[in-house]
Amino acid sequence: MSHTVELLCVGTELLLGNILNTDARDLSRELTALGLNVRYHTVVGDNPERLKAAVDIARNRADVIITTGGLGPTCDDLTKQTLAEAFGLKLVFHPDCAAGIEAFFAKMGRKMTENNLQQAYLPEGCDILDNAWGTAPGCAFQAGGNYVVMLPGPPRECIPMFKERAMPWLSRLSEGVIRSRTLRVFGAGESEVEALLRDRMNELTNPTLAPYAKEGEVELRVTAKADTEEAADALIAPIEAEVRAILGRKVYGADVAGLEQVVLEGLRARSLTMGTAESCTGGLIAKRITDLPGSSAVLKGGIVSYTNEVKANVLGVSRTLLDEKGAVCAEVAEQMAEGARRVLGCDLAVSATGVAGPDSDDRGNPVGLVYVALAAPDGTEVKELHLSGGTNRRDRVRNLAANHALDLIRRWLEDHPA
Amino acid sequence: MSHTVELLCVGTELLLGNILNTDARDLSRELTALGLNVRYHTVVGDNPERLKAAVDIARNRADVIITTGGLGPTCDDLTKQTLAEAFGLKLVFHPDCAAGIEAFFAKMGRKMTENNLQQAYLPEGCDILDNAWGTAPGCAFQAGGNYVVMLPGPPRECIPMFKERAMPWLSRLSEGVIRSRTLRVFGAGESEVEALLRDRMNELTNPTLAPYAKEGEVELRVTAKADTEEAADALIAPIEAEVRAILGRKVYGADVAGLEQVVLEGLRARSLTMGTAESCTGGLIAKRITDLPGSSAVLKGGIVSYTNEVKANVLGVSRTLLDEKGAVCAEVAEQMAEGARRVLGCDLAVSATGVAGPDSDDRGNPVGLVYVALAAPDGTEVKELHLSGGTNRRDRVRNLAANHALDLIRRWLEDHPA
Repeated sequence: MSHTVELLCVGTELLLGNILNTDARDLSRELTALGLNVRYHTVVGDNPERLKAAVDIARNRADVIITTGGLGPTCDDLTKQTLAEAFGLKLVFHPDCAAGIEAFFAKMGRKMTENNLQQAYLPEGCDILDNAWGTAPGCAFQAGGNYVVMLPGPPRECIPMFKERAMPWLSRLSEGVIRSRTLRVFGAGESEVEALLRDRMNELTNPTLAPYAKEGEVELRVTAKADTEEAADALIAPIEAEVRAILGRKVYGADVAGLEQVVLEGLRARSLTMGTAESCTGGLIAKRITDLPGSSAVLKGGIVSYTNEVKANVLGVSRTLLDEKGAVCAEVAEQMAEGARRVLGCDLAVSATGVAGPDSDDRGNPVGLVYVALAAPDGTEVKELHLSGGTNRRDRVRNLAANHALDLIRRWLEDHPA
Repeated sequence: MSHTVELLCVGTELLLGNILNTDARDLSRELTALGLNVRYHTVVGDNPERLKAAVDIARNRADVIITTGGLGPTCDDLTKQTLAEAFGLKLVFHPDCAAGIEAFFAKMGRKMTENNLQQAYLPEGCDILDNAWGTAPGCAFQAGGNYVVMLPGPPRECIPMFKERAMPWLSRLSEGVIRSRTLRVFGAGESEVEALLRDRMNELTNPTLAPYAKEGEVELRVTAKADTEEAADALIAPIEAEVRAILGRKVYGADVAGLEQVVLEGLRARSLTMGTAESCTGGLIAKRITDLPGSSAVLKGGIVSYTNEVKANVLGVSRTLLDEKGAVCAEVAEQMAEGARRVLGCDLAVSATGVAGPDSDDRGNPVGLVYVALAAPDGTEVKELHLSGGTNRRDRVRNLAANHALDLIRRWLEDHPA
């Protein structure tokens, strides 16, 4: 029998619509992977009566209550007091927590005001969840048939606190160790991945295999439960191998941040440089690479050639070609990539030219027709794409085109081992 | 006495953490602007017993219940049945809704399966909220002291349905017409804006004036309630004038999508073109302009000059200057902008060079030191920025640098009326 969970998120700013409740999404995903059943999310404001009433509802319909928010030093921060009261516990001062809070301020070079010590009061008998990412410690306790975990609200504190502190505490509920590994898939839609793996996903119970659709790609998460980390990893390995055998090179990495990360690391490992020539993606490919720290070792630069004039003048694309076939064709993509490689002096260059929309171009090329090319020391390759719709079609076409361009480099790197 | 609201979002995918609950954020913001008090968000899965229990809780603690999700044609879609049952209403077939659903499929060129007609059953006596953005109609009714509004889950249907259909229906609760206008502010932090306007924000009741912090800028929303749209607008106008008088040119627009939109429209109105030369922003400025449809009329292109080699070879920045002062200085920013203007053949060019982090550069320039420049027919201007921290410092520095570069164009356009 697996346990049921209610997330109780405390914060008037959520009810005013000032911020998105990313904690609820991220914690739900982690809890589901732990094998717990998230049954409810509840958001209440910074109001002790309404919070108390919400706790009374939650304790009767879920085993595990996880709160976010309201642990800070201001008078609005009432979660600890209210939860302690609801479960008949006193708040107790913890000198070691107080020392930790003082140390955090010292490390940041900031002066600590007295009200911060409020955060060192925690329910009697609780386990303290140390906060290495901010000042407010969290806590966890078992009372009256419920498991209660309290986490701070800011996502940059909440999520690492959950992973590093709350998960080990909650692992008692899942009797053993939980490990997971996320395979990243590009070049197959969610429905295709599901069709290929549905039977396995349905029959597997440990590890479980679950897909998550992301824009233009799919994540497959393999999650195993065992007595030790090694045993859990040993359960994951054959499933990973099986998925890789079925999906082949569409799996571009495991536990990686994205295609740009794989490209950046692959190029760095081989001491190679890259550049971009972008028409319809308008700088997005370069932007995604330079989102990553360390990209200056790899990206020499990029040319956003949004007009034919710039394609010809800066990248050296043939004017005759542009006049005769227009900017959206395989040959222009090739010449853009080759031009970028020459002008920027880089080892590999990718290009993208196409119709991002919302309207077809003046030659009648449809929205979603895109050519991406890779110019490399051993030659140039080009790929014709027909990128399909959805809402925000323009964004989608641009993102997918950038993914395909990055994937050309990823596959080239796989074909040219370091 | 203003009414209280509970949002009841139905969908197992929310509890699995597969998607973010953007509806809850967006509806909360709209409802707050309407003068209603959002007291709770509740998320439940596609389970009729648990949904029924959640409705029973909601009707006792809020006047208005707004549901999202579960209106579709599959057997998981149980919101209408469950809510109707909870309020003792029968579901009635509406032939005109069925015709609307058939027409939607015809328009999309897709074949309608029979189960779609399920969506034409709605609670007896309800007001139908016509769905022009998808197939499932929404509905609204008053029963047992509660106001109930049901909306589809997908944000691209939910939010326009709310604005176009539910708001007029709910306006009875706010007795009159609600209008709002959003002033966009760049160049002043939220705390500065609050300090300047706090007294007015506290004393104003109709219109209200509320700030929303966004990354690197602030939105000020003026919301008025009156008998007619004209009367509401007449209440807003003097507050807008007052805010503009206090914040001056920091207000860059009203009811606009962002700085890039103002820049794009301003350039288009004057038939001017632009280009970019980007170092630390790595393509982000060009990307933001080309996010917008119609940008090809304005953006000629851009150079991402991530290395000194590209700054010198492509943009013609002086090698001596780069050797002596490094890439992060006012003169390099100027030469980059001027080089882009020349190479790309555009009327205006902006540049950005600086240290995005996470580490200071090899000359010891600190993270957050950025120079942006604008080269225009009447000369070049440069601005030195010291962009401060927060989490995701690299992203923040890059976004702020792009905002400042776009703001140089915005201010130039204001100084050069069409």
